Amino acid sequence: MPHIELANDAPGIRGLMQFRPETARPLNELVEVLLRDDNTLSRGERELIASYVSKLNDCDYCSTSHGAYAALQLDGGWSVVDGVWADPGGAPVSDKMHGLLAIAAKVQQGGKHVTETDVVAAREAGATDEEIHDTVLIAAAFCMYNRYVDGLATVAPKGRASYEERGHAIVEHGYRALNARLAAPPAPPT
Amino acid sequence: MPHIELANDAPGIRGLMQFRPETARPLNELVEVLLRDDNTLSRGERELIASYVSKLNDCDYCSTSHGAYAALQLDGGWSVVDGVWADPGGAPVSDKMHGLLAIAAKVQQGGKHVTETDVVAAREAGATDEEIHDTVLIAAAFCMYNRYVDGLATVAPKGRASYEERGHAIVEHGYRALNARLAAPPAPPT
Repeated sequence: MPHIELANDAPGIRGLMQFRPETARPLNELVEVLLRDDNTLSRGERELIASYVSKLNDCDYCSTSHGAYAALQLDGGWSVVDGVWADPGGAPVSDKMHGLLAIAAKVQQGGKHVTETDVVAAREAGATDEEIHDTVLIAAAFCMYNRYVDGLATVAPKGRASYEERGHAIVEHGYRALNARLAAPPAPPT
Repeated sequence: MPHIELANDAPGIRGLMQFRPETARPLNELVEVLLRDDNTLSRGERELIASYVSKLNDCDYCSTSHGAYAALQLDGGWSVVDGVWADPGGAPVSDKMHGLLAIAAKVQQGGKHVTETDVVAAREAGATDEEIHDTVLIAAAFCMYNRYVDGLATVAPKGRASYEERGHAIVEHGYRALNARLAAPPAPPT
């Protein structure tokens, strides 16, 4: 049961976003830019980083949500996601993704854990500075989303089915579209 | 020296925001809503939570920045900020703020560290559900900003003077105003 009275029964971050639409808007905008806007990393690769960090943070709602969105957009589907969660070093992803996932895991521990050696390894595997930047910010952002969802004790549905169902809408319409369903913002001052 | 080539010498998150204006915009919007928009917690109290979490995350740039912005907006100035950093339980803040700072410290460790007991204690000290929500999200957000700033090894100026100088502009104009100085967004598709 959530720690606060949300006045809705939507699970995970969705209930929080209905409770506080003012903060939901920039949170949806940020995740759209990071995970879906034009990028040399595919949407599936970026969702994979998000789900991996969420798994390291033991956040069931976020790891399963973004795991489902990654699985829907990656060749290999859930087998790739499950592989990264179980053994990122041995998972069937590119050398570049191995380097970026290693950086993401360091960010999850804390910003100062990322070393020059980690960055050089990713770069030698083909990662650009923008890809390294975005990986650090995706990992950091999910250290926020995970703490938000679990810090308020929101409900996470069991199993993968409901997350996959929602995943089809996210893959088609994205996160930014969710803002249209929130309560209207207050009128600007006249 | 930053891990990536930023092509500017601005310190901390400022250099990252110039490097990647697309992600800077929602990051500035989020922090404006959380720390400055209308709220029953004062701007000084919210900056204090941000600086405290940043201190727990050992992020020099963010703790000193937001410490300076808190000091400029709180009766007692830096003595309150230094007091919270050194001994939050004994610091000269309200009972409600003691309860909220305790929740923020749990969020810094991880979302699942927040207990019903923590939430009940804050509520009994006068905190509303919206204040508890916002405290959890401020703490979670600074777990992101701190990892972003340190995960890319940005530069943090020494001392407090440059942060205080910048603080006057933040107190007067806010974070949202910073977006006007970023490179223009791409034209929408025609």
